[in-house]
Amino acid sequence: MRDATTAEPLSIDHVQTPALLLDRAKLRRNIRRMSERIAGLGGVLRPHAKTCKSIDVVHEIVAGGNTRGITVSTLAEAEYFFDRGIADITYAVGIAPNKFASVAALIERGCEISIILDSVAMAGRLAEYAKGIAVSFKVLIELDTDGHRSGVAPDADELIAIGQCLHDAERIELAGVLTHAGESYNARTRDELLAIARQERDGAVHAAERLRARGLPCRVVSIGSTPTALAVDDLSGITEVRPGVYAFFDLVMAGIGVCSVDEIAVSVLASVIGHQADKAWAITDAGWMAMSRDRGTSGQAIDYGYGLVADPGGRPIADLVVSGANQEHGIVSSRTGSALAHECLAIGDLVRVLPNHACATSAQFSRYVVTDGGDVIAEWPRHNGW
Amino acid sequence: MRDATTAEPLSIDHVQTPALLLDRAKLRRNIRRMSERIAGLGGVLRPHAKTCKSIDVVHEIVAGGNTRGITVSTLAEAEYFFDRGIADITYAVGIAPNKFASVAALIERGCEISIILDSVAMAGRLAEYAKGIAVSFKVLIELDTDGHRSGVAPDADELIAIGQCLHDAERIELAGVLTHAGESYNARTRDELLAIARQERDGAVHAAERLRARGLPCRVVSIGSTPTALAVDDLSGITEVRPGVYAFFDLVMAGIGVCSVDEIAVSVLASVIGHQADKAWAITDAGWMAMSRDRGTSGQAIDYGYGLVADPGGRPIADLVVSGANQEHGIVSSRTGSALAHECLAIGDLVRVLPNHACATSAQFSRYVVTDGGDVIAEWPRHNGW
Repeated sequence: MRDATTAEPLSIDHVQTPALLLDRAKLRRNIRRMSERIAGLGGVLRPHAKTCKSIDVVHEIVAGGNTRGITVSTLAEAEYFFDRGIADITYAVGIAPNKFASVAALIERGCEISIILDSVAMAGRLAEYAKGIAVSFKVLIELDTDGHRSGVAPDADELIAIGQCLHDAERIELAGVLTHAGESYNARTRDELLAIARQERDGAVHAAERLRARGLPCRVVSIGSTPTALAVDDLSGITEVRPGVYAFFDLVMAGIGVCSVDEIAVSVLASVIGHQADKAWAITDAGWMAMSRDRGTSGQAIDYGYGLVADPGGRPIADLVVSGANQEHGIVSSRTGSALAHECLAIGDLVRVLPNHACATSAQFSRYVVTDGGDVIAEWPRHNGW
Repeated sequence: MRDATTAEPLSIDHVQTPALLLDRAKLRRNIRRMSERIAGLGGVLRPHAKTCKSIDVVHEIVAGGNTRGITVSTLAEAEYFFDRGIADITYAVGIAPNKFASVAALIERGCEISIILDSVAMAGRLAEYAKGIAVSFKVLIELDTDGHRSGVAPDADELIAIGQCLHDAERIELAGVLTHAGESYNARTRDELLAIARQERDGAVHAAERLRARGLPCRVVSIGSTPTALAVDDLSGITEVRPGVYAFFDLVMAGIGVCSVDEIAVSVLASVIGHQADKAWAITDAGWMAMSRDRGTSGQAIDYGYGLVADPGGRPIADLVVSGANQEHGIVSSRTGSALAHECLAIGDLVRVLPNHACATSAQFSRYVVTDGGDVIAEWPRHNGW
């Protein structure tokens, strides 16, 4: 399938496999659900575009309401979205010195980009660089509320030292604090999830209060992950929430319990290219290059291998999963041994494979084949890379 | 780094991270080694371009000598390489009906493409399609010599049935047999590797003899994987060998024992963006989006996590590895606990991360930053996707 939107809708039967399908009706339902939930708590979204990397999807999210700006994970995304009319952007990965110049160039062009860092060392590097430029950097201090990866602890002395360093620097605005409760992906119960969500919120609010108590500015108090955004029960003191994968959902989110398998909006369309009857396998043309190597469900109650196999209408077929993957081959078999994949699937059949992790699988493709029922209604490009 | 080849060589210190580096001297040494080895056995290479997906790398491989045509893993690669002057191509993933038309279009344009299949069902689908077209398909029967994934067993009745179906069809040439000893990736000793290599060769030769004994043509007898190509001791009866990853090598190949860590030609350049001193972590801006989710060394004697951390000159730093990865964050720690990552690496430092699997990591990038020592000498694009 090489054409963009066609006058006469194309059936997915004519799409060349493997292809990344995006179900627009599910996308819109997922967007509405999050928008209404956060609005109900009096909050506002700064949706994370790292999952979709697509201006068309971001337009759908903005149309869903209750957003202010976007979040990105790469400078390539920042440049792509800014060139397409989105000026209010938070680049939510710790800045590196070799990116200072690209950020300054974006600011000079009118982009209201915020960057993040979590050390006095990096704040000092930025302050040194900022002396020589004509624009001003907006900086958020990254917080660690759950020991997941980056960030300074909300009660650490270094928080104040970083704030002071940034506030004292020329051409830097200390804009606030930001955290991401990455440990929410490991939650196993609703109670665990709510506890992590409260910890994320409390940590961010506590850090903001500490900065303000020292006379340091803290306009932005930013939190967010899809699981915590769907669990948090109070957003007092929080100025924005940054979930990303909720627009698509995936098997990992279903395993955490924040969506159902039926709500997953992205899938990989694949063809059955062979059988290995003695092993009860069917072989497809969607291997790890198409699905990604993400095995995010491997530690969950249900391990879907490299993905859950559904029919072209999106209904799971028996308990078939992609149990193994080579670069361009998916090995389909029964998860429990209760079905024979080579009997369920004929050679030449099309299947839809639901992914473990929407961010990882989508990144293997340069475009979405957007569907409405069984019809292809558009092709939306993605902006991958750095 | 946004510019192509520059007049004055750029230092890698000025490359924006993360970036995919390709060391040209190592690439050329790896190419020469395989070329000479296969020539020494009286064989010829049909190198697999699925690892590099780059015409510039293929030009280096062809310049290394002893090749005839190339192998590809997607039709996108076939079209890309054909448009750049490579006409003799084997598409070595089982064909699907929705790709018949694209293959026919390539043949019509003068591409000498061969396709593969492993069932009477798919041979029948192709024969039905071929009746209505103006060109002729060249088809290889895929063999399974080690139970790894696809292919028909060399001694199966279906081999003859497929051959007869293809030979009897209009506008189809039964060109031969092809196999890939995927199980070689699981070899743990030199003896195991040699046994798999001999099994691959013997299976392919046996299948060819069976077809010929029935009066069916079998011009091509194609085998190949990097480990078996570096282990096989006799190529009698074999017309071509199809290794791919040998041009780059990676940690998995080092674990199998067919290269040293120092021979790995690709790496990811990353910046240290933070520390978590209490955990002895350094955080980089190369997460799984840059490294891929491939954990190919997890079952080997040395598990390198998501990659081995080296200095900008390519020398490993203590025993630091990327022990964890989020989308755009790499967590660097000591593999054995003998070093403190946050003390080995200063904030803002550059590191080179050697990948588990060159095919998977390279696919996360749209281009190579080609280096000679510490200088950037070119940018070579990759052709990802389908």
